Amino acid sequence: MDERPIGVFDSGLGGLTAVRELRRLLPGEDIVYFGDTGRVPYGGRSADTIVKYARQDVAFLRTFDLKAIVIACGTVSTTALDVLTAENPIPVLGVVAPAARAAARATRNGRIGLIGTQASIRSGAYERLIHRENPGAQVLARACPLFVPLVENGRFRRGDVVIETVAAEYLAPLREAGVDTLVLGCTHYPLLEGVISACMGPEVTLINAGAEGARAVAGMLEQSDALSPSAGPGRYRYFVSDRQEDFSHLASIFLGWDVTESVGQVDISQY
Amino acid sequence: MDERPIGVFDSGLGGLTAVRELRRLLPGEDIVYFGDTGRVPYGGRSADTIVKYARQDVAFLRTFDLKAIVIACGTVSTTALDVLTAENPIPVLGVVAPAARAAARATRNGRIGLIGTQASIRSGAYERLIHRENPGAQVLARACPLFVPLVENGRFRRGDVVIETVAAEYLAPLREAGVDTLVLGCTHYPLLEGVISACMGPEVTLINAGAEGARAVAGMLEQSDALSPSAGPGRYRYFVSDRQEDFSHLASIFLGWDVTESVGQVDISQY
Repeated sequence: MDERPIGVFDSGLGGLTAVRELRRLLPGEDIVYFGDTGRVPYGGRSADTIVKYARQDVAFLRTFDLKAIVIACGTVSTTALDVLTAENPIPVLGVVAPAARAAARATRNGRIGLIGTQASIRSGAYERLIHRENPGAQVLARACPLFVPLVENGRFRRGDVVIETVAAEYLAPLREAGVDTLVLGCTHYPLLEGVISACMGPEVTLINAGAEGARAVAGMLEQSDALSPSAGPGRYRYFVSDRQEDFSHLASIFLGWDVTESVGQVDISQY
Repeated sequence: MDERPIGVFDSGLGGLTAVRELRRLLPGEDIVYFGDTGRVPYGGRSADTIVKYARQDVAFLRTFDLKAIVIACGTVSTTALDVLTAENPIPVLGVVAPAARAAARATRNGRIGLIGTQASIRSGAYERLIHRENPGAQVLARACPLFVPLVENGRFRRGDVVIETVAAEYLAPLREAGVDTLVLGCTHYPLLEGVISACMGPEVTLINAGAEGARAVAGMLEQSDALSPSAGPGRYRYFVSDRQEDFSHLASIFLGWDVTESVGQVDISQY
């Protein structure tokens, strides 16, 4: 038993899709979330910059006494997991390995599509881990740089010609290649499930990287007997690097519950 | 005569539209440009964060011995000009006052449209300065948060249904209100001139804030006899806070000339 909280972070709001799944699986756990809203998005930045920002994000989270850290961000998971794991004495889990494993198992025809930010796709991390699980799998990867700004501007609903046009363009080569499984490699993308599914067809299995990451943490804590002994609902604290007010509104869309009361602001450049 | 360079900065690439105009007007001036590509975009962030970032941008530029600084960014000009002017002993010029003046003079029917980032519109700075020049003018303002990410992803050309749909939505209320003048209050927007003009109609005058800012600096330097004595072409140096390589490609689109040789990288959080 371990009553310390779980730390979760993302470049911004996307990681809240993992928090949502964590609460569903482990309602008794305390969670400290950090969203780097003062520097979002990470996905178009260089690997050096992403590693630097991720180190600061973890340094802030570790001002709390945590039992584990979840990198609820596809970009950081593909680009900085090794560095963060090596530098921290508590378990640091990303979303890439769990999502790659789920995709490698889900495919029936061996053709797996992968979408993510430019940095995630450039890293090759998802492909490497999919091939470790399923060496014969073909992986077709596509960067979708406009998905994050469109989601953050509320354009994620079916019937919106803007998101539907952009999605159709990005996904056309994957659909034409006949993939039967598609990894949503960025934690913002679950909000686009409806749009993406309509584009790819109902026979394509979508793998939600944030939810897979949450499941992997739940499994790890169970196996190492590190679940919280608390019987009541867990305590949720959120921190951001820009104004709390701007965060709270969109956060409720990602989470499905209200966070207004428990959001604090952090000067992340100090870490 | 003053041979010191002019400093120019922006959150990213947009300010290069002002550099382009500066070179046209004053080809003999040396220019030091800083683009905060590691933290772009600024337009959706809070005023506090924008002021903090802008102070660091200016502190870096002032490691050079400059004769003036141009804030070639609508967001910083609307949000941090007063602070930057008060804190620096050299002239600091923004794009808001010159653009507001041009718009106040251009309108014939007294109805002026204004588009910019969320932070720029929230500040009310353009309206205040337009009313100072033309107290009877009606100003209709509209934030266009997706324009910067769309431009930075190369979606600025006529015939692209995505940018045309977004532009039509943002601009509809301004067109319906019958504005005869439209301020492009963000230095990214001149790349959308074709799309915006097609949407608004040929009778609407577009005011380019970056170009107006460049003209104001040229005028100020001429009046104070501070132009460079150099007869040859000026020297251009560019600095960014993320990878040079990612900057160079898009910069050539904004500028119309190649910058590969003269781009350096800066750790802006140190300033």
